[in-house]
Amino acid sequence: MNADKIPDIIIGRLPVYLRALQRMAENGMKTTSSQELGELVGISAAQIRKDISQFGEFGKQGTGYSISFLIDKLREILNVNRMWDIVIVGAGDMGHALARYQGFSNRGFRVAMVFDIDNAKVGQKIGGFIIEDASTMTERIRSAKIKMAMMTVPASAAQAVADKLVQAGVRAILNYAPTSINVPHNVRVQYIDPSTHLQRMTYYLD
Amino acid sequence: MNADKIPDIIIGRLPVYLRALQRMAENGMKTTSSQELGELVGISAAQIRKDISQFGEFGKQGTGYSISFLIDKLREILNVNRMWDIVIVGAGDMGHALARYQGFSNRGFRVAMVFDIDNAKVGQKIGGFIIEDASTMTERIRSAKIKMAMMTVPASAAQAVADKLVQAGVRAILNYAPTSINVPHNVRVQYIDPSTHLQRMTYYLD
Repeated sequence: MNADKIPDIIIGRLPVYLRALQRMAENGMKTTSSQELGELVGISAAQIRKDISQFGEFGKQGTGYSISFLIDKLREILNVNRMWDIVIVGAGDMGHALARYQGFSNRGFRVAMVFDIDNAKVGQKIGGFIIEDASTMTERIRSAKIKMAMMTVPASAAQAVADKLVQAGVRAILNYAPTSINVPHNVRVQYIDPSTHLQRMTYYLD
Repeated sequence: MNADKIPDIIIGRLPVYLRALQRMAENGMKTTSSQELGELVGISAAQIRKDISQFGEFGKQGTGYSISFLIDKLREILNVNRMWDIVIVGAGDMGHALARYQGFSNRGFRVAMVFDIDNAKVGQKIGGFIIEDASTMTERIRSAKIKMAMMTVPASAAQAVADKLVQAGVRAILNYAPTSINVPHNVRVQYIDPSTHLQRMTYYLD
């Protein structure tokens, strides 16, 4: 299974399948079908079978998928059968919400550090974290060998912060700043910008 | 220009172009090229030209695009050459962050109401809003003719809240609850779930 060979659009659907399967498991379900999963996530059964079959034969004709088996396989494929430490850069409202968010641990993630440049914030607590001085960020991240970051900084600061994160060894950035950032090819970026998502919908409204 | 004819993947890129163009304009720039825009947003110049040409001829060979003209056209195409009122359902940390977020107004959006089911929260203020009782939500949204909502509720409550929003006439939902929801075909949903975005990146990490 070569990372380059599977289209990223398929990779993007796997976490959605995993999330739905985890909810099924929490509700006590043991098996499911591509039809049932498809209805839950709003994707066709054929697409789901095709996506999953990229990685092997995980279901049996007629009996469907074992939910726990498929969860294990998807966690393995997505590399979340382990915990990833993440730093948060920017301790504004969004940084606060993420630092206090309870939904990371069962998805493979653990917030490890929170940074801000504002001296008035440094030393304060959010969630279980003491906000650290962003000037120490590169060194702190590098020595802890942290590979993931969430950036909740203003758009004007985003590129400079991203550059520092990359220098520190970060390989995956979830960017909440409402701007595109440039990173080297071996670094992944995902964007969360509510206005962008909303504009994708207003196109269809009248 | 028929909404059904343009692939949604193209529509999804237009807000990213618009965001970059707005930053260029804020920085005093007057014209740009598909090359320059492409470098900013990490999309090829050819793809940008192809995407934009779906909607008409907005640039001139050799002289590139007028930024203000292209902004106007994209805002018109995306229906954000007007203000959209939005409700927030769920006044937890994320609802707070969104209610206080300053980045909506220059993108076409205005938070109009915030709802929660928790009696302890109802009547409290966040941002400029008084948190309203979710039991009044359907009626309040319907009489204000609001078409858009952001849902920041627990996964377990998401489907029931979505059903009520649809009943109230909402046609576009930005869902922050970490679960898929089912809505009628004439209602759009976009998802923001940091864990899903993060898992899409861990696939590529080792």
